[in-house]
Amino acid sequence: MTDFAATRPLFDLPEGVIYLDGNSLGPLPRAAAARVARTVTREWGEMVITGWNRAGWMAQPRALGDRIGRLIGAAPGTVVVGDTLSVKVYQALAAALEMRPDRRVVLSDTGNFPTDLYMAEGLISTLGRGHELKCVAPETVEDHIDGEVAVVMLTEVDYRTGRRHDMARLTRAAHAAGALTIWDLAHSAGALPVDVAATGADFAAGCTYKYLNAGPGAPAFIYVAPRHAETARPALSGWLGHAAPFDFEPAYRAGRGIDRMRVGTPPVIQMAALEAALDIWDGVDMAALRARSLALGDLFIAEVEARCPALALVTPRVHRDRGSQVSFRFAEGFAAMQALIARGVIGDFRAPDIMRFGIAPLYIGEDDIRHAAGILQEVMEGRLWDDPAYRQRAAVT
Amino acid sequence: MTDFAATRPLFDLPEGVIYLDGNSLGPLPRAAAARVARTVTREWGEMVITGWNRAGWMAQPRALGDRIGRLIGAAPGTVVVGDTLSVKVYQALAAALEMRPDRRVVLSDTGNFPTDLYMAEGLISTLGRGHELKCVAPETVEDHIDGEVAVVMLTEVDYRTGRRHDMARLTRAAHAAGALTIWDLAHSAGALPVDVAATGADFAAGCTYKYLNAGPGAPAFIYVAPRHAETARPALSGWLGHAAPFDFEPAYRAGRGIDRMRVGTPPVIQMAALEAALDIWDGVDMAALRARSLALGDLFIAEVEARCPALALVTPRVHRDRGSQVSFRFAEGFAAMQALIARGVIGDFRAPDIMRFGIAPLYIGEDDIRHAAGILQEVMEGRLWDDPAYRQRAAVT
Repeated sequence: MTDFAATRPLFDLPEGVIYLDGNSLGPLPRAAAARVARTVTREWGEMVITGWNRAGWMAQPRALGDRIGRLIGAAPGTVVVGDTLSVKVYQALAAALEMRPDRRVVLSDTGNFPTDLYMAEGLISTLGRGHELKCVAPETVEDHIDGEVAVVMLTEVDYRTGRRHDMARLTRAAHAAGALTIWDLAHSAGALPVDVAATGADFAAGCTYKYLNAGPGAPAFIYVAPRHAETARPALSGWLGHAAPFDFEPAYRAGRGIDRMRVGTPPVIQMAALEAALDIWDGVDMAALRARSLALGDLFIAEVEARCPALALVTPRVHRDRGSQVSFRFAEGFAAMQALIARGVIGDFRAPDIMRFGIAPLYIGEDDIRHAAGILQEVMEGRLWDDPAYRQRAAVT
Repeated sequence: MTDFAATRPLFDLPEGVIYLDGNSLGPLPRAAAARVARTVTREWGEMVITGWNRAGWMAQPRALGDRIGRLIGAAPGTVVVGDTLSVKVYQALAAALEMRPDRRVVLSDTGNFPTDLYMAEGLISTLGRGHELKCVAPETVEDHIDGEVAVVMLTEVDYRTGRRHDMARLTRAAHAAGALTIWDLAHSAGALPVDVAATGADFAAGCTYKYLNAGPGAPAFIYVAPRHAETARPALSGWLGHAAPFDFEPAYRAGRGIDRMRVGTPPVIQMAALEAALDIWDGVDMAALRARSLALGDLFIAEVEARCPALALVTPRVHRDRGSQVSFRFAEGFAAMQALIARGVIGDFRAPDIMRFGIAPLYIGEDDIRHAAGILQEVMEGRLWDDPAYRQRAAVT
């Protein structure tokens, strides 16, 4: 049983802030600063090139992949770390489409994170073989799985609404129709228990900078089901995915299993932060995390609905159907969120009108939830969003 | 005029080591440790999500790209940082092939770094339109540029031999034949003056962890000639290359100019190290660097040839034709290099028989060169490569 009172001091949280944006960027694990400094000074500084072997840098993408694997139900040797989520989604989709050469539809939904859709669009254009990216309403995905669909490509938890797909059910439906599945776990890994093996997912990918707390620009990960691992062709066939990278052979030979999904040189310094972040996760029971996340989410919903009648819940109330964030719709949501942030409660906003609040039990407790709801009430009752200072948009929102 | 005695103390070099492997991984700039620590603690730790704006993380790929641009003759706004070199080569090649739809040959050479060839192979397979990757001997590239060639894709400086292509001449020949050029600057950026604009290069890409000293896993960069910048289609069309990434539009619209070559979330912590590394480069005159690199290279060649008759120079003696490394051929080169490293002179080995020595004037001087040659002489005269301990290969060599 995980003691969540004990995990909170493992994070360096900004003074005077209630941080409800871990679904966008997790906070700094206290040990990460020292771990990164060690990699920079003791490893890069003192070992220089020999760090690839002596400090184990070259083996890190697989070692870290295995540790993420435990959180998403993936067996050791089926997850590898590297690149960005966009790139990993591209690799998965390119491999999957080749495995269904007679089908032309990539089925996704309008709640998928745009980069997944953009990467698919780019790949389809590169292929030039008339594939179609079909985006349907999230609730209707199952109705659109038919014999034309090559790949069902979905993000398990909707980045705006927090609505959660039924991964097992949709994967079964896809397989029954002869299609493959790609699951984006950006809002799942570290947010709730995932079991890619049990649900039968063919491919999965995710990022590590949200709930996993590995820092800004932390690398992504990719999972390939063992039944595909020796046949999936990595479209991005970089040297570190080669069977013998340091033999410098002129022709590409795909590495064994998940190794082939490596591309270029891994980001050693970012991986140091990821390693420190995963040290915390190693001790976390995912069922306990889920129970606590849902309880805190329920509390936040109850508090906000009692205090802020103008906010309309968009996240499903049913536990099964939601991830680890709570979102409300409000026409002046952008400015209201700025006002809230100015008062030390950090959530975020997604156009056109969604205020998002991430629930991360590792460092958020009942007091934070109640306090945040109280400040939100002040913002709403005071109509603080009318202040012109809160209406200006910055580059990143 | 750059004072190279003043740049050496800006690096944390390992105690008792002469580091001649900056062509593989540059050493730690002394200021990088503090810069990285600041990004981790003051930015990620204290600003968390607001760091994207307040600490300028989102703007860094372009800002750092401009600073690299000065070193490679690229105008501001034509270079952007991100991903790995493999990924950037893929983007350039995918875009270039689309610009020459009626041609089927990618011309490269057998001295190109394997990942460039592997990525091309992967792209060609993905395209499935009968493209051919034609690899010829480096000296014969120009003879093979004809009306069938869509793209000439070369690494300016050969990673094994240190032989340098004539970028201006080959680019002219390519253009005369209606082909485009992609230049891999992995062994050029920070090694010698490059002028992508004057030579007319269409695309260029490079890494920042070699001569630029940005650390293990530091991000790559890509250059697109301004004449192509608004038409080149980014095959890897990620959300940060979108014209309005934070509008979360369902369809992709390519960003303006070089922005479209961004893909996913940039590696903020690695970029902090790159920023510190570039602080040193901002003060370096590239012509002075080149003169010193060649003088040190000449000295190393003269010293080694005088002391080690068994080593055969493979790097061109002619200044124009070489980069900033010196390589020797020796059948027992692997074990000899291990023996040398054990004595504090770090170079590296590339199969089957090449001993490589990188010359980086920012932290290497005449005394280092003479001292290294003397220790190499001891290794050679003592036949130290016969020691079984030096014959064992590690994963990374």
